[in-house]
Amino acid sequence: MGARRNPASAEAILAAAEAVLQEQGYSGFSIEAVARRARAGKPTIYRWWPSKAALLIEVYQRQKRDIVYADTGDIEKDLFLFAQSLFDQWRNTPAGTIFRSLVAEAQFDETAAEALADYAHGRRAHTGKLVERAKTRGEVADDVDPSQVADLVSSYAWVHLLTGRLDEDADKLRTAIRAIVRGIKA
Amino acid sequence: MGARRNPASAEAILAAAEAVLQEQGYSGFSIEAVARRARAGKPTIYRWWPSKAALLIEVYQRQKRDIVYADTGDIEKDLFLFAQSLFDQWRNTPAGTIFRSLVAEAQFDETAAEALADYAHGRRAHTGKLVERAKTRGEVADDVDPSQVADLVSSYAWVHLLTGRLDEDADKLRTAIRAIVRGIKA
Repeated sequence: MGARRNPASAEAILAAAEAVLQEQGYSGFSIEAVARRARAGKPTIYRWWPSKAALLIEVYQRQKRDIVYADTGDIEKDLFLFAQSLFDQWRNTPAGTIFRSLVAEAQFDETAAEALADYAHGRRAHTGKLVERAKTRGEVADDVDPSQVADLVSSYAWVHLLTGRLDEDADKLRTAIRAIVRGIKA
Repeated sequence: MGARRNPASAEAILAAAEAVLQEQGYSGFSIEAVARRARAGKPTIYRWWPSKAALLIEVYQRQKRDIVYADTGDIEKDLFLFAQSLFDQWRNTPAGTIFRSLVAEAQFDETAAEALADYAHGRRAHTGKLVERAKTRGEVADDVDPSQVADLVSSYAWVHLLTGRLDEDADKLRTAIRAIVRGIKA
């Protein structure tokens, strides 16, 4: 993540970024507004976050820290707990609105598009670890690509967020996860 | 779709909307610009399309008319042909960019959000018919919700579009569809 940060200043900038987002929404969110709020210089912010999108992604991740990566020994349960916690975080914290803004920005802005693509790639690898473990214990077929399973689950979640369907019944989510898991079993 | 249309005028308005989008991009797209280009009155356009988003969706559907809804007797093949044709259309026609714009707009604008949600709901029902047929012939389990299967497939496609991954290998798409189908088999 670029140059070495001063933890206290970085924390102040992230807190300012959260406050700007909360008070002025995404349309009022800019490096300039965050710098003003944090009483920091724009060059400092740009040294640590190469773009507005990069800063937004870190704010987003701070909001979303309670995502569940369980290890129950049952891949269906692990993936359901992951997806359910993602729905919950998007529904109950500003994370959902922040992520919607980020996806929207990425459709028009090349820098945001790259930042989002990198972030999503990293998350698929991370969530894929649940599936890798299940492969190791022989629960999932050898030829399954863990990051593709993560892609199926998270794409389903993203589109629910983007089309305003986070309130869908938990049983429906359970059924979707069950179908995916049934399709990759050893 | 609102009041009865005069086919020639409606056609001229849709053609003008396509031209405005192509020449000025989404940022230059407005009912006003389309009216000017089509030499039509704004009230006429609003009578036939209640919002900019509604007009955009119809332009999008015109671009995307070659989506394949096959009936090969094999649900895996039918869903793969559907998804592959969607990737192709998004990649090779302006449809991809138009749809990205629409999804972005829906994250900030309530009217666009409703139009997109309605559209997506209709598409899930339509694509779900492939799965319904497969249920009827006993290929897919009785308790499967066809529109949820359509949701899994199209969410995977949407997120590929939104994160710039339409160039992914066709074999990867085939593997994703295979997993979904294996998970819903009778």
